[in-house]
Amino acid sequence: MTSTDTEMEGHKAAVLLEHTRNAVDPHLRAAVETLPGAIRRVAMYHFGWQNADGTPASGQAGKAMRPALVLAAARALGGDAQAAMRAAVAVELAHNFTLLHDDVIDEDTTRRHRPTAWALFGVPDAVITGDALLALALRLLANDPHPASGQAATRLSTCVIELCAGQQADCALEERGPDDVTLDECLAMAMAKTGALLGCACALGALYAGAGEREVDAMDGFGREAGLAFQLIDDLIGIWGDTARTGKPVGADLTAHKKSLPVVAALTSDAPAAAELAALYRGAMNTPAEVRSAADAVDRAGGRDWAQIAAADRMARAVHHLSRALPAPADAGELLALAEFVTRRTH
Amino acid sequence: MTSTDTEMEGHKAAVLLEHTRNAVDPHLRAAVETLPGAIRRVAMYHFGWQNADGTPASGQAGKAMRPALVLAAARALGGDAQAAMRAAVAVELAHNFTLLHDDVIDEDTTRRHRPTAWALFGVPDAVITGDALLALALRLLANDPHPASGQAATRLSTCVIELCAGQQADCALEERGPDDVTLDECLAMAMAKTGALLGCACALGALYAGAGEREVDAMDGFGREAGLAFQLIDDLIGIWGDTARTGKPVGADLTAHKKSLPVVAALTSDAPAAAELAALYRGAMNTPAEVRSAADAVDRAGGRDWAQIAAADRMARAVHHLSRALPAPADAGELLALAEFVTRRTH
Repeated sequence: MTSTDTEMEGHKAAVLLEHTRNAVDPHLRAAVETLPGAIRRVAMYHFGWQNADGTPASGQAGKAMRPALVLAAARALGGDAQAAMRAAVAVELAHNFTLLHDDVIDEDTTRRHRPTAWALFGVPDAVITGDALLALALRLLANDPHPASGQAATRLSTCVIELCAGQQADCALEERGPDDVTLDECLAMAMAKTGALLGCACALGALYAGAGEREVDAMDGFGREAGLAFQLIDDLIGIWGDTARTGKPVGADLTAHKKSLPVVAALTSDAPAAAELAALYRGAMNTPAEVRSAADAVDRAGGRDWAQIAAADRMARAVHHLSRALPAPADAGELLALAEFVTRRTH
Repeated sequence: MTSTDTEMEGHKAAVLLEHTRNAVDPHLRAAVETLPGAIRRVAMYHFGWQNADGTPASGQAGKAMRPALVLAAARALGGDAQAAMRAAVAVELAHNFTLLHDDVIDEDTTRRHRPTAWALFGVPDAVITGDALLALALRLLANDPHPASGQAATRLSTCVIELCAGQQADCALEERGPDDVTLDECLAMAMAKTGALLGCACALGALYAGAGEREVDAMDGFGREAGLAFQLIDDLIGIWGDTARTGKPVGADLTAHKKSLPVVAALTSDAPAAAELAALYRGAMNTPAEVRSAADAVDRAGGRDWAQIAAADRMARAVHHLSRALPAPADAGELLALAEFVTRRTH
């Protein structure tokens, strides 16, 4: 693509995401407002609709990427996006269930520039609210008279189990030493933790459009591979930064000793820099010079190139899956724009 | 009932529970065995099927009260218990999801005479395994071709939200002072935390028997009221003990400053002993003499009598609901035996 094409795709995705947020938010909010009082309050805070004291807030509840994939997939397959709204809301609720629990498990204290729910309301309220969002997501589907809702609930609950496995694997990997991880298990973890729900979102859109198993699986594959491309780009940003766009400082993941994909690619390479990197990972790595050395070692050991090539490869696989689901290229426009956007090649 | 009748009911319930455990366990285990490796291991430990090191254990996975209610309700309404097996397994999985998370939240270190999952595997693994059991429970129903499965999934997910609200209310009540709780909110909490899932179990059995809304709701009411009767008896045992039967030492709930139902009934009474009890609850209450004084104050303030009368009243309400669902008394035998058993009037 030329850079003008890319800018147009980026613009298209941004408009689509804003559209989706506006269309989905009232339904998402109506669902959250059915929760019992104290749980509702934590959820309203988490979604950015309320401040800690319960007063209204104008904050944004994320980018609505997953609902946008549900609705775009439904439209692409000739379905009625409005009829797939419950599926879009269910996927967004399931995503936020994982955010609430992951923040507890990872002890992250900040999300979207605010204290995380557990940091503010305590671990019990954050765990309980996450549980309730998961039950609410699956209740929306169980309750939906749409003929695809049963299959959608099966897919979403299967996906949640995969998300759990991904989060579990992430915790386990972080506890192991830098010489004790393989690239394959890190890729499998990223696919489970990030790819699975993007794939599920696309698959649910396809199901709600009345698509057959082959199209649904191809849509799932598209979302999964785009999700992995996203993770690879995100991991590159976690090392070399993109403060202008994301606010993530250079070296953030290195300071945190995160075993991100480029790091593990470097650690498991034959290059001499792999041993340097492993030594840095065994130490404190809290001075700017050490962080620069580590980033340099990832680069020299081939981790940076590998991740860039792998991201492009995953995007190619995503496009291939999409072409199986949607033989007419014109139908793929929205989904491609979203995939380009999510991998931050365009903004 | 005469004491011989009571003994027979107790024997009947014990046989029925053992039968249910034997019938349900292979299906429960097959469901758990579909979970990904590390999560499966925590779940197999939690259910008592494996030791911490992954070797087989002969431990019992609880009494199977909830599956027994599902299957007995299905049979009582003329349904095929075997066809309701998935519902029985789903309810048991949902119950164990709450146990895993409640142990984390309440920081309980022992369950069924073994370390709790979080105490052994850490908070992340216990939270994640609970999440996976909930998703698995709802997947079993989403996946079930039985015509009642959609309504059952709606009921179970609604019930899980109520269980979350009950656990949240429990945490909030425990943080408040002894003068700052009402009996009504404690009863509502106990209904949400204990009654709701017993009611849901009975309702799911009715749904799977093809019963109409009126019978399903009456079955739900039966389970809920029996559940509240159970909680009241359990709270009495938590103060005056029943070490021979339950292993619970005398005064356990008092030492833990638990605001159980008899305690709150006493605290909110007009009796002079209410102030004595409040004063003891504001202190450390860790000597045997203080615990005896507190138990005595609950008694003198009328908390013990109130709880015994309330438990009998709740059982009467349960029986009334049951007679609405099952006009022929002969059909009610199993469910009544289970309700008698769960309230520990017979063992």
